[in-house]
Amino acid sequence: MAYFDAASAVPLHPVARQALLASLDEGWADPARLYREGRRARMLLDAAREAVAEAVGCRTDEVVFTSSGTRAVHTGVAGALAGRRRVGHHLIVSAVEHSSVLHSAEVFEADGGTVTRVPVNRAGAVDPSAYADALRGDTALAVLQSANHEVGTEQPVAQVAEACRAAGVPLLVDAAQSLGWGRVEGDWSLLAASAHKWGGPPGVGLLVVRKGVRFAARGPVDERESGRAAGFENIPAIVAAAASLRAVRAEAAAEAVRLRELTERIRARVPELVPDVEVVGDPRRRLPGVVTFSCLYVDGEALLHELDREGFSVSSGSSCTSSTLTPSHVLRAMGVLSEGNVRVSLPPGAAEEDVERFLSVLPGAVAAVREKLGAPAAGPAAPAADGDAVVVDAVGRRCPIPVIELAKVIGDVPVGGTVRVLADDEAARLDIPAWCEMRGQEYVGEEPADTGMAYVVRRLS
Amino acid sequence: MAYFDAASAVPLHPVARQALLASLDEGWADPARLYREGRRARMLLDAAREAVAEAVGCRTDEVVFTSSGTRAVHTGVAGALAGRRRVGHHLIVSAVEHSSVLHSAEVFEADGGTVTRVPVNRAGAVDPSAYADALRGDTALAVLQSANHEVGTEQPVAQVAEACRAAGVPLLVDAAQSLGWGRVEGDWSLLAASAHKWGGPPGVGLLVVRKGVRFAARGPVDERESGRAAGFENIPAIVAAAASLRAVRAEAAAEAVRLRELTERIRARVPELVPDVEVVGDPRRRLPGVVTFSCLYVDGEALLHELDREGFSVSSGSSCTSSTLTPSHVLRAMGVLSEGNVRVSLPPGAAEEDVERFLSVLPGAVAAVREKLGAPAAGPAAPAADGDAVVVDAVGRRCPIPVIELAKVIGDVPVGGTVRVLADDEAARLDIPAWCEMRGQEYVGEEPADTGMAYVVRRLS
Repeated sequence: MAYFDAASAVPLHPVARQALLASLDEGWADPARLYREGRRARMLLDAAREAVAEAVGCRTDEVVFTSSGTRAVHTGVAGALAGRRRVGHHLIVSAVEHSSVLHSAEVFEADGGTVTRVPVNRAGAVDPSAYADALRGDTALAVLQSANHEVGTEQPVAQVAEACRAAGVPLLVDAAQSLGWGRVEGDWSLLAASAHKWGGPPGVGLLVVRKGVRFAARGPVDERESGRAAGFENIPAIVAAAASLRAVRAEAAAEAVRLRELTERIRARVPELVPDVEVVGDPRRRLPGVVTFSCLYVDGEALLHELDREGFSVSSGSSCTSSTLTPSHVLRAMGVLSEGNVRVSLPPGAAEEDVERFLSVLPGAVAAVREKLGAPAAGPAAPAADGDAVVVDAVGRRCPIPVIELAKVIGDVPVGGTVRVLADDEAARLDIPAWCEMRGQEYVGEEPADTGMAYVVRRLS
Repeated sequence: MAYFDAASAVPLHPVARQALLASLDEGWADPARLYREGRRARMLLDAAREAVAEAVGCRTDEVVFTSSGTRAVHTGVAGALAGRRRVGHHLIVSAVEHSSVLHSAEVFEADGGTVTRVPVNRAGAVDPSAYADALRGDTALAVLQSANHEVGTEQPVAQVAEACRAAGVPLLVDAAQSLGWGRVEGDWSLLAASAHKWGGPPGVGLLVVRKGVRFAARGPVDERESGRAAGFENIPAIVAAAASLRAVRAEAAAEAVRLRELTERIRARVPELVPDVEVVGDPRRRLPGVVTFSCLYVDGEALLHELDREGFSVSSGSSCTSSTLTPSHVLRAMGVLSEGNVRVSLPPGAAEEDVERFLSVLPGAVAAVREKLGAPAAGPAAPAADGDAVVVDAVGRRCPIPVIELAKVIGDVPVGGTVRVLADDEAARLDIPAWCEMRGQEYVGEEPADTGMAYVVRRLS
């Protein structure tokens, strides 16, 4: 049994568990009350706030505890936008932000705001100068993650923060994936994070609003948390979250080196062990524990099931694993293959032997899925010669079938000939060009067809 | 040491503690994931939802877990109003709702909505026919608490629900104070509650939206909790909350009888033991564990400190205990004395000997505060005869000083003569008329003065 989905959630840190138990007894009362149980709760809350402020590198009165990281982002984005509504109604986000940021942006757009989504390179990173170019006179807020949750790529936060500072625009950093590893560098204005990513309990998010940042809380408020997070404070969980943050930070430097070595091993060995695999994300500027790859001709959900049967818990950005049947917006923005996508995110303490066992199990798991799907054998298809244009009808077939069908027939057209793949699965738009890139074939483009789209590929070799 | 502020929060129920510990180990993963840790978390969440649905008396797919009772109210009110925005922009609440409801109403008003605040009688209850009269063709939502959080008075929810149903208006019931005691009767449409009031952990609220009720979630959403509560589910806390609800319900019938007897004892004995006290709230239709009284010539905060020193944790609706320096809106709506206000709310399991000790300690605590403030002795003042109109200047003096000064001089005017109390403390508006009622003097009315108001009292006896 190996849990390799730390980017989603990690089990409670032993230190957090201890702190939670103690503060269930000591911190259940209302900290706004004057009697001893209330004062005791207030002391615990104050101490937790100090610990978190120290870990973040901010003042205690800049820290707001929310009920989740998602809530911290929603509150932070809405409050900062409202605080600067006289400046303008323009918001900048990167194209690969967490859904909580993108959903906030959609709400802002629906209310009449304008949103610029800064693109990323094939490694998943924004270009700081492209980000800076998006800043306008009416920009109310800029948002950038410290590191990407799906591929682990670190963003150039300090440089973007500098550009924002120069333009007088506050930058909100979504530090959900990185805060356990260290402070966010650079002169940011707001920060959001989530405790259950660093071994704290669920139910605690963190919103930091620097002094001097204009902020107008939205919706009904109360007196708690500086009027920025309504509702009874969850003190036992907050205390546990703070304790856990201190504990993982104490272990962070050594553990980062160890996990980086393990993920480097996965990055290097998976393409050797498994044919037709693309490892995605920045190879160097990345989170220590995250490695993501996509496997041609593989159904992500089926692969997750195979790996689960073998005792490995990982996640996937493939469309077949999402309820919306669209591939991950991160992989789409990067322009990389989404089919057969696997994210391995190692929790602190992940065992080397589990990683080795994963590497030994993965090739068989991928092969089993490919066999069930009738995937073509690896390598370029054998030349064939009937006609110079072939049409493959994959309408109604889900990822990765359209790509599998394409691969099966590419050898049937001569070099210079074309294959038209008819498909209505959203993933085909991403995966057919990605297949061409991996296979050295030419992606000509897409055209509307009777049902869905026609994706045209020219054989080059 | 006795904690008598259960209406604010109660310590974790032992059953909840056990459930929390178990599900910290089993329920920390993302329930949306396909791997075993995710499936295990999903099973725990589903089981908790079933237990809560059974306790509430609703379908499992009507239950939404939020991060607090306040959040449940905010989400429920906003979602129901938005769901019926085509019907109209009129909201009905009672004047004595929890601040989370009133804050929601204020936001709705600021956005152009109209709010009717249904008054209450001197016992704190709405009149069902007055509530029904407030229903209009453009009423989008009606809100009523099941029982009041400050004085314990139960509201006629079933009758109001019937009137709302007849008018086709959904009724949202804030059941925060009563859900641990039993299901909410009547044909309500939405329900909100908070787990830490029934011995669950903080961090769990409950929103129930009946099938068929129009509901449009506001703000950024995600796929969790039917799109009605964004953010990672706090499963360990939800499991603990459900376990606690079952446990307190199993004990509710017997415990209600026991606590009702204890609070009845306080209701009866406090006026015998302490002079110049008004017990407020409905003597019969009330929560089992809550009893509230106000003491003339007493500073609520000072009394809370005295009682805390004696080992009793209670709360107060007096203005001097709130950061806004206004008396509780509940006491104001009831038109009862707010000074020296004490709410005793017994948690399940409260010991009889602690209640007896409270009764033995209270008279001395009140007397000590009165002595410090220089309060007049109890009973009608001795007749005096210099002039038939006296002016008392209490500008800049906080509650209960204006009333104390009034009581000191009332004997200096002849029967038929008047006292004008100049005061700028908001509590005087409530407490001077209440004093007149308690003392059998005539409250003539208020007039604007150079600073603050002049409150005019005529001596009748």
